[in-house]
Amino acid sequence: MTSGTELLDAIRRAGADLDVPCGGKGTCGKCVVRVAGGEVDSNSLGALSGASVADGYVLACQTRVLDVEVVVEVPQSSADERGKFSDTDETHLLRRELLPRDFEYDPLATKWLVNVAAPQLGDGLSDLDRLTRAIQQDWGKIQTTYPLAVIRTVADVVREAGGLVTVTLVREPGQMHIVRVEPGDTTTRHLGIAVDIGTTTVAVQLIDLCHGNVMATRTAYNGQIGCGLDVISRINYARRPERLEELRTRVLETINRLIRQVCASHDVDPCELCNAVLSGNTTMSHLLLGLKPEYIRLDPYVPTVGQFPYLRARETGIEIAPDSWIYLSPCVGSYVGGDITAGILCTDLATDTDEVNLFVDIGTNGELVVGNRDFLMTCACSAGPAFEGGGIDCGMRAAVGAIEKVQVDPKTGMPRCSTIGEVKPRGVCGSGMIGLLADLYLTGWIDSGGRLDRSRPCPAICIDGKRARYVLAEAQESGTGQEIAVSETDIDNILRAKAAIYSACALMIRHLEMEFTDLAHMYIAGGFGRFLDLEKAIVIGLIPDIPREKFRYIGNSSLMGSYMVAISQDYCRRQTELAQRMTCIELSSEAAYMDQYTAALFLPHTDRELFPSVHPARAHRHVGQGGHVAVQP
Amino acid sequence: MTSGTELLDAIRRAGADLDVPCGGKGTCGKCVVRVAGGEVDSNSLGALSGASVADGYVLACQTRVLDVEVVVEVPQSSADERGKFSDTDETHLLRRELLPRDFEYDPLATKWLVNVAAPQLGDGLSDLDRLTRAIQQDWGKIQTTYPLAVIRTVADVVREAGGLVTVTLVREPGQMHIVRVEPGDTTTRHLGIAVDIGTTTVAVQLIDLCHGNVMATRTAYNGQIGCGLDVISRINYARRPERLEELRTRVLETINRLIRQVCASHDVDPCELCNAVLSGNTTMSHLLLGLKPEYIRLDPYVPTVGQFPYLRARETGIEIAPDSWIYLSPCVGSYVGGDITAGILCTDLATDTDEVNLFVDIGTNGELVVGNRDFLMTCACSAGPAFEGGGIDCGMRAAVGAIEKVQVDPKTGMPRCSTIGEVKPRGVCGSGMIGLLADLYLTGWIDSGGRLDRSRPCPAICIDGKRARYVLAEAQESGTGQEIAVSETDIDNILRAKAAIYSACALMIRHLEMEFTDLAHMYIAGGFGRFLDLEKAIVIGLIPDIPREKFRYIGNSSLMGSYMVAISQDYCRRQTELAQRMTCIELSSEAAYMDQYTAALFLPHTDRELFPSVHPARAHRHVGQGGHVAVQP
Repeated sequence: MTSGTELLDAIRRAGADLDVPCGGKGTCGKCVVRVAGGEVDSNSLGALSGASVADGYVLACQTRVLDVEVVVEVPQSSADERGKFSDTDETHLLRRELLPRDFEYDPLATKWLVNVAAPQLGDGLSDLDRLTRAIQQDWGKIQTTYPLAVIRTVADVVREAGGLVTVTLVREPGQMHIVRVEPGDTTTRHLGIAVDIGTTTVAVQLIDLCHGNVMATRTAYNGQIGCGLDVISRINYARRPERLEELRTRVLETINRLIRQVCASHDVDPCELCNAVLSGNTTMSHLLLGLKPEYIRLDPYVPTVGQFPYLRARETGIEIAPDSWIYLSPCVGSYVGGDITAGILCTDLATDTDEVNLFVDIGTNGELVVGNRDFLMTCACSAGPAFEGGGIDCGMRAAVGAIEKVQVDPKTGMPRCSTIGEVKPRGVCGSGMIGLLADLYLTGWIDSGGRLDRSRPCPAICIDGKRARYVLAEAQESGTGQEIAVSETDIDNILRAKAAIYSACALMIRHLEMEFTDLAHMYIAGGFGRFLDLEKAIVIGLIPDIPREKFRYIGNSSLMGSYMVAISQDYCRRQTELAQRMTCIELSSEAAYMDQYTAALFLPHTDRELFPSVHPARAHRHVGQGGHVAVQP
Repeated sequence: MTSGTELLDAIRRAGADLDVPCGGKGTCGKCVVRVAGGEVDSNSLGALSGASVADGYVLACQTRVLDVEVVVEVPQSSADERGKFSDTDETHLLRRELLPRDFEYDPLATKWLVNVAAPQLGDGLSDLDRLTRAIQQDWGKIQTTYPLAVIRTVADVVREAGGLVTVTLVREPGQMHIVRVEPGDTTTRHLGIAVDIGTTTVAVQLIDLCHGNVMATRTAYNGQIGCGLDVISRINYARRPERLEELRTRVLETINRLIRQVCASHDVDPCELCNAVLSGNTTMSHLLLGLKPEYIRLDPYVPTVGQFPYLRARETGIEIAPDSWIYLSPCVGSYVGGDITAGILCTDLATDTDEVNLFVDIGTNGELVVGNRDFLMTCACSAGPAFEGGGIDCGMRAAVGAIEKVQVDPKTGMPRCSTIGEVKPRGVCGSGMIGLLADLYLTGWIDSGGRLDRSRPCPAICIDGKRARYVLAEAQESGTGQEIAVSETDIDNILRAKAAIYSACALMIRHLEMEFTDLAHMYIAGGFGRFLDLEKAIVIGLIPDIPREKFRYIGNSSLMGSYMVAISQDYCRRQTELAQRMTCIELSSEAAYMDQYTAALFLPHTDRELFPSVHPARAHRHVGQGGHVAVQP
């Protein structure tokens, strides 16, 4: 080890894995290790107790190496954390029925068959000239660019099949890029990918660009998770160039692994993929490209790039055909990114309507867009990764083994769970958490503050000192061999997440001097489950208590929007226009936001009149107030 | 060694150097080696005598390895050949006085100072947006492209010097590429390079793009020489992909070494260089880019690329600023390349004149352009590398130590030589060869067939069996410690080279139904010396016997034209227009060419009336005819 090196970096370089959910700021305490030998300079006191520090425990992110050799014990518990981020090979279902029916099929990357004239001495035309002329016969006199690697193949390709050449081309304003040339007619096989780069989850979709079919989808946790759970932690982590490069490499590894998986499922060589459309929030987009994200979180919150330039796969590190176009959905501001400009393509916000619609994407960050053809306003709030299983002890993605539905017996308080894939439960996904909280509240087993009822005996409720937890599956019933339980801390995390979302929605609507009921539709996107039980989401106060027919749950709209851009030039253009029309509002600068947020930290809300259809069992309204109240019918 | 490998490849892989001037076709016999152990399959009989083959000698290029281990003796003589291709650090003088005085100074790569607005929350503009707006304020709403590596620097650069940013930009039709951004005002330091990629010699010039000054020039033999002396040999050599890659790497090594040299001479980091303009013949241009050159030499002689697309340094392997523009001069046909479209920029052919001008570039290939503002015709002929010192035993480039002038004493036949740099002679360059032949002919020491006079005693003429040689410097007088002599074989090579050039010129002029005297000017370009003694070039019949004021010797016009393009957009546009206007004529398809060539193989020509001003001493007109004739005054 070089003296002065941060201990966290040294440990990672030595091959050990250590998560820093806070991004290395010394606040989460997850990178605690014990220094067994060698001298270090540590600033861990305060975060750790004096006794721990005396025993040699330090926060790796707050410690510098002073000796040539330092011996460190990495506790098992830290490495274990990663278990819940393991990947499964489930197909992540899209709400295909929500795909627009009227879009024009015209993919960003087009395969085009041309007939190249034979070489002739007299005409002075090179191989490239003749190929360009053949293309221009169909496409007009547009400027045509060729990457060097493509030019290297041209001489043989134009001669191999008697001049019959399949050209893969992409169009930008004023020019056309040739990304591949192949001898003969290969137009019947044409493939691309759509990618959603979530802070927590990455999804990759293989697309048959000939017919617009989705062939396979795979999801995995973003490999950057070990460097911070949310975007702020990642930005903190990226403060040194080698760490920025580490984050870039980590997400690339995730994306490239998923690309190999979707390809392997259909016996496709990744080099056949001629186009990738990726959508991620502003920080994810910047990190993917190795752009310093620091200014995203510094006043005045201006990112380096909004509309991304033309990028080739080889310069980004995405392992598809090296000269194919890597299209990143445009970002509107530091906290409203490409996942949102892709997401609203799946809603009426992308249509020419007078009606006002609200789009909410519930991910690690929550983002909102509200508007119609005349105006589009957007804002973001920090929900945390709870709905995707992050920051929840037994949380997990909506993958096989995730508890996605929970029913609580009103009398016994015991749960009945159903898991994705109908296997032994391995954890709880977002929709499971919402269902559980709603049922516990409706049946009176938690109060509106999220506190479990300690007054009635219930085998599912385990009390451990001041804190209680609700056990969904005993160790022997679980697929992991460990108890699956939701603690009051987990419940608090969910409450904070739903409060952030709800209060942001309420504030935006108030901003427009409207009511929720004035909305034509409220679109809900997010990765918290395959389905969202609207009634239960209303019970916990995540979404407003308005007529149910106004809701549209659209799942992973960032992925679906990416897919729509990949298969439609028209949607690509629409996306750019929408991004340019959107106005960002900074919620943190609104004085009313904190009040709204605090009021929303209860089930369903402090102001019960906002949720007239929610009727909890009043058996144990407030533990400690004493007395029983009859359960309302 | 893998069984079946070509022995030549195996020997090179083992680290030994073996030249194949013929490109590995088995015709030059330079790659002869002796197999001392192990089995091979050789096809060397015919090229080598039966006795040699019996002794184990083979041509490495015609032999395949059959055993796992084969022991080979590489004769010293073959490696020694390389000695004459060693580099010296001379400054290669340009005819700076020939630079046009009326050109518009406007370099391809421009440094431009802009003021980028400070980031603001409200305006929705990213760092890149604000930078682009600042550029567009000066340059209009042109589409602007940024490479990813540049975008990675933007966030810090726009903030570092209060928004003052120096942008390096290059313009293409309809768009502008940003190749670098730097904080603050760096417009006073702006550098680029011009490169001539000759088949034999490569020249690199460092240019101060702020003022258009040439700061340094370095030349070296093209590293591909070991793989063939002329373009046909190189094309033959490149027939396998790994050999094409070898040729690409070899010329890149030469260019990059010269770049480092010119940079080191002025304490410049090669990464500061923002633009490179390179000119080479069609084969050299293709090999530099790794394009298969095979079709160049196959009927109908159509190259892959004529007008080269926008290329970045990083994709070509040229080691300057990685995103800077690599501009290659356009090629007109398989045998009329970028060296010619660059070269004619130095002549009145690039001006709007009625007068007909002839441009001749005498290199390893000879290329001609004739025309005026109404027409431009061009053709090529194969002269061989003799004028650049290739294929001549003691030949060398016009570098320090080269004999560049020779005077022969009419009575004694003894030479008086002067060398570049006034040091001990190391070899003879093209101008020295021309001077020597002219003087030997005028003084009667060689006849018009190039045969040395054996009838008069002269210490400089050494007779060795049937062949004779003319000694310019004894071993003890020479800078190499070895005798410097010109053999009758060398003289034959020069005669063939000059015959190829002269007959091509004569044929072109006849094609136009003109006479040489109808030309306004005849421009002569070439790397055979710093200066060309016109009188002597006429004596040997290299150029026609017309009024001397019509001649313009313009030296390395490919390098000068590259320089002119680098410092002037206008010349860049003119070059493209000229290339499009040029019509190629295939001399080999003209029946008259062979007759013209054969007639030109004598000094000065079979038809003495074409050279009325050449009066040789008639003392020994034809050795063997006997009798002395009085020397004419």
